Amino acid sequence: MSSSLNIISKGEFDFISLGALVHRLDPGTIPFRKATECKIHVSGGEFNVAANLADCFKMKTGIVSAIVDYPIGELISERVRAMGVKSFFKEFKHNGVNGPNMATVYSDRGFGLRAPVVFYNRCNEAAALLRPGDFNWKEIFSGGVRWVHSGGIFASLSETTGELIIEAMKSAKDAGAITSFDLNYRTKLWNIWGGEKKAVEVISRIVEYADVLIGNEEDLQKGLAIAGPEVTKKSKLDPSIFFGMIDKVIEKYPKVKVVATTLREVLSTNHHSWSAVAWINGKTYSAPTCELNVYDRVGGGDGFASGLIFGLLTNEKPEEAVKLGWAHGALLTT
Amino acid sequence: MSSSLNIISKGEFDFISLGALVHRLDPGTIPFRKATECKIHVSGGEFNVAANLADCFKMKTGIVSAIVDYPIGELISERVRAMGVKSFFKEFKHNGVNGPNMATVYSDRGFGLRAPVVFYNRCNEAAALLRPGDFNWKEIFSGGVRWVHSGGIFASLSETTGELIIEAMKSAKDAGAITSFDLNYRTKLWNIWGGEKKAVEVISRIVEYADVLIGNEEDLQKGLAIAGPEVTKKSKLDPSIFFGMIDKVIEKYPKVKVVATTLREVLSTNHHSWSAVAWINGKTYSAPTCELNVYDRVGGGDGFASGLIFGLLTNEKPEEAVKLGWAHGALLTT
Amino acid sequence: MSSSLNIISKGEFDFISLGALVHRLDPGTIPFRKATECKIHVSGGEFNVAANLADCFKMKTGIVSAIVDYPIGELISERVRAMGVKSFFKEFKHNGVNGPNMATVYSDRGFGLRAPVVFYNRCNEAAALLRPGDFNWKEIFSGGVRWVHSGGIFASLSETTGELIIEAMKSAKDAGAITSFDLNYRTKLWNIWGGEKKAVEVISRIVEYADVLIGNEEDLQKGLAIAGPEVTKKSKLDPSIFFGMIDKVIEKYPKVKVVATTLREVLSTNHHSWSAVAWINGKTYSAPTCELNVYDRVGGGDGFASGLIFGLLTNEKPEEAVKLGWAHGALLTT
Amino acid sequence: MSSSLNIISKGEFDFISLGALVHRLDPGTIPFRKATECKIHVSGGEFNVAANLADCFKMKTGIVSAIVDYPIGELISERVRAMGVKSFFKEFKHNGVNGPNMATVYSDRGFGLRAPVVFYNRCNEAAALLRPGDFNWKEIFSGGVRWVHSGGIFASLSETTGELIIEAMKSAKDAGAITSFDLNYRTKLWNIWGGEKKAVEVISRIVEYADVLIGNEEDLQKGLAIAGPEVTKKSKLDPSIFFGMIDKVIEKYPKVKVVATTLREVLSTNHHSWSAVAWINGKTYSAPTCELNVYDRVGGGDGFASGLIFGLLTNEKPEEAVKLGWAHGALLTT
Amino acid sequence: MSSSLNIISKGEFDFISLGALVHRLDPGTIPFRKATECKIHVSGGEFNVAANLADCFKMKTGIVSAIVDYPIGELISERVRAMGVKSFFKEFKHNGVNGPNMATVYSDRGFGLRAPVVFYNRCNEAAALLRPGDFNWKEIFSGGVRWVHSGGIFASLSETTGELIIEAMKSAKDAGAITSFDLNYRTKLWNIWGGEKKAVEVISRIVEYADVLIGNEEDLQKGLAIAGPEVTKKSKLDPSIFFGMIDKVIEKYPKVKVVATTLREVLSTNHHSWSAVAWINGKTYSAPTCELNVYDRVGGGDGFASGLIFGLLTNEKPEEAVKLGWAHGALLTT
Amino acid sequence: MSSSLNIISKGEFDFISLGALVHRLDPGTIPFRKATECKIHVSGGEFNVAANLADCFKMKTGIVSAIVDYPIGELISERVRAMGVKSFFKEFKHNGVNGPNMATVYSDRGFGLRAPVVFYNRCNEAAALLRPGDFNWKEIFSGGVRWVHSGGIFASLSETTGELIIEAMKSAKDAGAITSFDLNYRTKLWNIWGGEKKAVEVISRIVEYADVLIGNEEDLQKGLAIAGPEVTKKSKLDPSIFFGMIDKVIEKYPKVKVVATTLREVLSTNHHSWSAVAWINGKTYSAPTCELNVYDRVGGGDGFASGLIFGLLTNEKPEEAVKLGWAHGALLTT
Repeated sequence: MSSSLNIISKGEFDFISLGALVHRLDPGTIPFRKATECKIHVSGGEFNVAANLADCFKMKTGIVSAIVDYPIGELISERVRAMGVKSFFKEFKHNGVNGPNMATVYSDRGFGLRAPVVFYNRCNEAAALLRPGDFNWKEIFSGGVRWVHSGGIFASLSETTGELIIEAMKSAKDAGAITSFDLNYRTKLWNIWGGEKKAVEVISRIVEYADVLIGNEEDLQKGLAIAGPEVTKKSKLDPSIFFGMIDKVIEKYPKVKVVATTLREVLSTNHHSWSAVAWINGKTYSAPTCELNVYDRVGGGDGFASGLIFGLLTNEKPEEAVKLGWAHGALLTT
Repeated sequence: MSSSLNIISKGEFDFISLGALVHRLDPGTIPFRKATECKIHVSGGEFNVAANLADCFKMKTGIVSAIVDYPIGELISERVRAMGVKSFFKEFKHNGVNGPNMATVYSDRGFGLRAPVVFYNRCNEAAALLRPGDFNWKEIFSGGVRWVHSGGIFASLSETTGELIIEAMKSAKDAGAITSFDLNYRTKLWNIWGGEKKAVEVISRIVEYADVLIGNEEDLQKGLAIAGPEVTKKSKLDPSIFFGMIDKVIEKYPKVKVVATTLREVLSTNHHSWSAVAWINGKTYSAPTCELNVYDRVGGGDGFASGLIFGLLTNEKPEEAVKLGWAHGALLTT
Repeated sequence: MSSSLNIISKGEFDFISLGALVHRLDPGTIPFRKATECKIHVSGGEFNVAANLADCFKMKTGIVSAIVDYPIGELISERVRAMGVKSFFKEFKHNGVNGPNMATVYSDRGFGLRAPVVFYNRCNEAAALLRPGDFNWKEIFSGGVRWVHSGGIFASLSETTGELIIEAMKSAKDAGAITSFDLNYRTKLWNIWGGEKKAVEVISRIVEYADVLIGNEEDLQKGLAIAGPEVTKKSKLDPSIFFGMIDKVIEKYPKVKVVATTLREVLSTNHHSWSAVAWINGKTYSAPTCELNVYDRVGGGDGFASGLIFGLLTNEKPEEAVKLGWAHGALLTT
Repeated sequence: MSSSLNIISKGEFDFISLGALVHRLDPGTIPFRKATECKIHVSGGEFNVAANLADCFKMKTGIVSAIVDYPIGELISERVRAMGVKSFFKEFKHNGVNGPNMATVYSDRGFGLRAPVVFYNRCNEAAALLRPGDFNWKEIFSGGVRWVHSGGIFASLSETTGELIIEAMKSAKDAGAITSFDLNYRTKLWNIWGGEKKAVEVISRIVEYADVLIGNEEDLQKGLAIAGPEVTKKSKLDPSIFFGMIDKVIEKYPKVKVVATTLREVLSTNHHSWSAVAWINGKTYSAPTCELNVYDRVGGGDGFASGLIFGLLTNEKPEEAVKLGWAHGALLTT
Repeated sequence: MSSSLNIISKGEFDFISLGALVHRLDPGTIPFRKATECKIHVSGGEFNVAANLADCFKMKTGIVSAIVDYPIGELISERVRAMGVKSFFKEFKHNGVNGPNMATVYSDRGFGLRAPVVFYNRCNEAAALLRPGDFNWKEIFSGGVRWVHSGGIFASLSETTGELIIEAMKSAKDAGAITSFDLNYRTKLWNIWGGEKKAVEVISRIVEYADVLIGNEEDLQKGLAIAGPEVTKKSKLDPSIFFGMIDKVIEKYPKVKVVATTLREVLSTNHHSWSAVAWINGKTYSAPTCELNVYDRVGGGDGFASGLIFGLLTNEKPEEAVKLGWAHGALLTT
Repeated sequence: MSSSLNIISKGEFDFISLGALVHRLDPGTIPFRKATECKIHVSGGEFNVAANLADCFKMKTGIVSAIVDYPIGELISERVRAMGVKSFFKEFKHNGVNGPNMATVYSDRGFGLRAPVVFYNRCNEAAALLRPGDFNWKEIFSGGVRWVHSGGIFASLSETTGELIIEAMKSAKDAGAITSFDLNYRTKLWNIWGGEKKAVEVISRIVEYADVLIGNEEDLQKGLAIAGPEVTKKSKLDPSIFFGMIDKVIEKYPKVKVVATTLREVLSTNHHSWSAVAWINGKTYSAPTCELNVYDRVGGGDGFASGLIFGLLTNEKPEEAVKLGWAHGALLTT
């Protein structure tokens, strides 16, 4: 097995993800304060990986999440189906006025010097109400599942979501699946109820069950309390900083077999330099660096995770898996 | 004085309204469950009257409301300014994640047989946090104010908003202004915290201070617990039902000098028959009935209130004031 | 059983349809000769019924069809998934230049006096290449199927598609399913290879296996060679003409248990009078007549079939089933 | 005469082109598999040159082609007129279902790393049915024509179109016109009926009658079977490779007086380096290299041909003619 | 000859019109005061007739007008060519700042009760600078012309345009053409320089040379000072009022052989009742009345003129010619 | 005081501008000659500074200008209010046909190699009719004003606008305000009535009253007749040329205390190198140079002026004020 991950070769699902589904309002290059119209997208950091694996890589994937029985929930369900992802939903009933809601992500695309602006209305979000016991993992995994994934955005939503991730990962290990976790540290979200200290506590417990860890230098520092380098004058594209922190991660979480991240230098909103690196079973691999004309930066990181996981699931060589993640993430920004 | 309302002839403001400001997401004729894009409008039942009086009738108006310091708040502020309405805002700070928020109204336009669908995300709405003491009414009214208005949507938002309306109306009376209240009974909103009984209790206390009452038959029944007719087989355009209930209103609230409403028969989403009636100081007045090609029904009722109030403020004859309301409300649906 | 159709009460699929999938180019109210842009829809007369039953009525449905491995095929597959319809596709490989193609339907919406204009590019259409033996019906029906449907558009595509329908219907009967056929007679399509005589020959053989027949007066005349009334000065909304032809249909095809159709008077492109009638096991049922503001007339007939079939599948009374079809078809034109 | 082409100084037409007209569906930066709408453009490699010469350079031009009597044909005719190009059309009658059709070109614009994707539905294309004898060249050329053009896309459409080009070029020479041919080698098109061997056979016979040849290195190799350089590690902007092949072309086709091409290095879909070179009567000329922000790459090559031909027709110095082609082609990509 | 107009049977042109070309800015159903974007159309009352005759009826037509050498002039020229109308332009040079300009027509579409609003920026309009002597009519008419047309909008533009119409009509008569004049009385335009009295003076001199006169009751009253009926309580669809004024017209202008007009009752912006009448050589003809769903009312009158003229030019019976005008005008409003 | 400008610390207005308001028609990247639709923006060089200071920097600003009482005037008034700028308007009445008008600016955005194209219809522009005596400056400035601004575009409109600027500046000095003038030399505008000589004469008289002068090298040469450098081969980003001309400016206008400009190298329409410099009380300051992805270049210069003035008004250090202008101008092009 190229990556020495012990992946089941067949199963009803190649990949199942656990996370929140949101509707993103996107006014394009116009900032929200001047917007008069917007597109409505469906996304979710954890869902995006399942969606890419199904839509682009033709894998059999599923999403475990909350849905609300109102038109926004129906809109989101339709897009989940369209992407070819099978859903396992706990359904909530909307009261017509204040929830439970499917979260709103307000996010413009920025332009040139002007960075994208992102803010939320996650008030009374249905996904945050999910808790251990809500899903019958045995049944969900009964036809076989090769990989189970979740991430730091879902973990940050409430006191119960992190516990649900732990429950899911334990069941996944029982079912013989590989588990992965994308740290995706969001200070704003954690600060609503727990703060950085709580974040580290929750995430650390989750990572105990993760075979594959995705996250950049800042994610490792804030989400896992791994000390970073003292001097950070180096380019964001220099992998040595990232590799320097891996040893500390492995020391703390010796069961982790893969740690990977993208490296991104944002020259302007529409121009990024883009690379990716991974530590796989003690060896390090780097993708090339390329210049990206960026249409919309949202989703590049999830795209990397998707390509990498596809490579690992299909038994590509580690260096190829990293390149697949790097190339797929790059294409998703166009 | 034609309407025998005792209206101050001059003042810094012709009209000040108290209510919530919202952003409405409008996918047009496409229902939300199939929408991929939407327009963003700014509205609010109480605000609309101030906006129409300023934008269409060139009166000097103001809005007292809550605003949140984030891009949606800025978007809303800009539209308030654009309409020529002066704002008195209590400012809230957004935490980036769950509020306090400017409420979202999801509302398509429907088409033909398919009625418009409206639902909200009013969770943690800033306007619902407003309470007595938040505004310095003396200062706001110091340059003179001729008319002060509020309505049932704002009253329904929380336990404190109804009290704030009462505080405002008392101050308005002290300042010599006419007061009006548009019942706008919304079952969904009241049911979140109070239910119909609480609604009647709150609204009754507000109406004690109102010179002018706007509301249809259902509003009178549900919002004021005025018994309606036993048989309702008559056309919705027949004013006799409405006039039949007025006596009971006046009996209960003898200080009320004007009660008015639109009469609307919805033949299809795009075709309404439209009339309006008023009881003014003991006499009844009816506008003609006309057939409307309706583009978007939202705002027709507020448009009626605006035209009627303009007529009364400018000392038109009562029958002309009713016609102004009727005509302006009709135009707003195009 | 209300309709005396002997419908299996459970199964993996409530409904499976066999037919062609197309992409419709729709420039809206602008005629194609003046168009500079168009929307791209996915449809197909037979597919639409499966899509409506899944999307609106939440039934478990499938579509058996041809798909081509190129971007238009992927676009169509995504919309099939989005509607919640499971696909059984024979896949064709596109040569990049002339096919096999997913058919193009060019169709504007017309306006007022100006009727919609529809024309095709069905040259080398993949669905027309389908033939008996292409699908393993046993396997498709193995989990149980309650209803199997096809229609006259698919039957007209080539010499082999009618034969495939017959094969499917036989298998459906073997599997215990109800079978239905929507005549949907299209002179233009039949004239390409067979003409009216061939049409009658093919359709007659199909109808031998159909429990439920959908089709208007013209469909019965042209598709089944049933003589119509001599004088046709009556309103198109008068059901007597249609009922008058039923006896001849039943005489010729005694196994048919339901014959149903919509009645439509086109007053203008945007204004239809709309009714529906059905003969069910010897009794006749009529829906009311209503006036429709029509947004896009395409799909109204398929919408009727969907609602009717839903009513029959859920054991509604015959008159309710007809009304469900009538109401659902009406809503689809908005 | 600067270019030593012996160009008639006056005539009813400065330029007449022979080729197919198509409608291009363009979803912009969104790939077709995710598109829900598209623009409809009118183009055609051979037509584009006539259109640019008329629209931008105000020359008197004509197009000889096939048209179909249906709305897409009318749409195309209107755009031909709008560009100021006079048409000589053989008219075909559409059967409403499968042709003869005006070809569809599906072509998105790509973005950044993602290249544009192009595919066709040319099934039963009217232009492919054109054959020698369809046009009265004497009459078309009777008022005088200074230049006659065709190209490799039209030549590839069927067994008869190449023969028609030869017929046209012979008549053009008889009428005293300069003749040009743009190789535009498209492997996909030739492979449908003839393959590379047939292509070389047909094109060679056409080139016998061409004074001016346009085509890049690959066009010369595949379309004329001229051997290319052994090593191709050089930049695509280095003209030496191209010049190295000219001698072989001239040896084989000694009547050719001009061979020209663009040189393009595609750095990303939106960033090309752009130059152009020409061999004119034994001397070589190069345009500068510039960096292009590319909006839509389609049409750059035809734009080069137009500018070059304009320069030659107006008796500019050869180096100026090459620069005109280079600059005009560059502008067309914006 | 059915209409006893003595029409030449062949000629290079079936129809030539003299008038101004404008660009119309059209924000659709949104009134200009709230518009943020608009469509750009090309029109002109006199041009529209030539355009319809060419585009819809495939006649050979021309337009004599002014054009300005700047991008708006180019935009307009392109649309003239697209409609298939040959242009005879006097070209003016734009100074980049204040003209001469192609006139701007600001015109929304209105909706329902809200009527369309139209206003102009015709300041320093090139067409108003046209004067007798600007065109070589002999040369324009040299290949034969069957019909020459102009109208009251062009006549109203300046002191010289009316004189130019007279010059053109005289030349037209010399060339054996039928002449027509559409009164199209616009009070706003005449009031800029001449007022109603000047209008009558100019128009009367023009009508001396007109065989065919188009204009409604108001046009006849204001443009020709023909006294109207005393009481006008009759429906606008009652032709008797119009017929009653014809005698006075013929008495005053005995050479006129046809007088025609549309009859339109505007029920709402989107719903008109529509008819048309004509007096042809002493007999009167009426079209049926139909109900129109109106998309954009602009151009309906010109559409009537086009259909009527087509009918007369192709020797249809008078009643058919009137119906052609009526039907074509109706279709143009969709 | 950092900049040694003696700025009043408080006042009803932080900033009042005098200039023309226009509506800009913007077809985006499509050139006008090919446009079929456009956006409608409201702008004006002098207004933009007031708008930016209010909208972005939350200062209290006003605009003194002309408005016309027609829908375009209303549209413009609304946008002025939306930006939070208080208006002092002289109102003109539109005659419906040729004015007085709000000027039209036709301006596309260009793309890549293709530069934006700008032209006007300023014929009979209301703002050009403004003249000394039209405004009561004492009253406007009565609540205190800290800064008064105008510019070269307004000065160029007519013989009276320059005189009005002088009147305003005198009053501003009397009121204790800082005065600024942005040269913004537009050859096209001056040439309509005065030419370069008249321009220098008018501008020189204005600059007598200006504390702050904004304008680039060309502005200084043409607008103030200051001789430029003999050799201009240096980069447009090299500040030495600009600084070299300052001495001559100060010699001629010794009261000027600040001279500032942006430095811009246009690499392509979408890529500029951008810097800014200022001479403030004898010292020179430079902003860094950055690379801009430009969305729309219009407004960058006004944006610089806004940021610089904000910095000076808020008592930032001179180098910070220059950077604020530079950064704000850059952001405005995104």
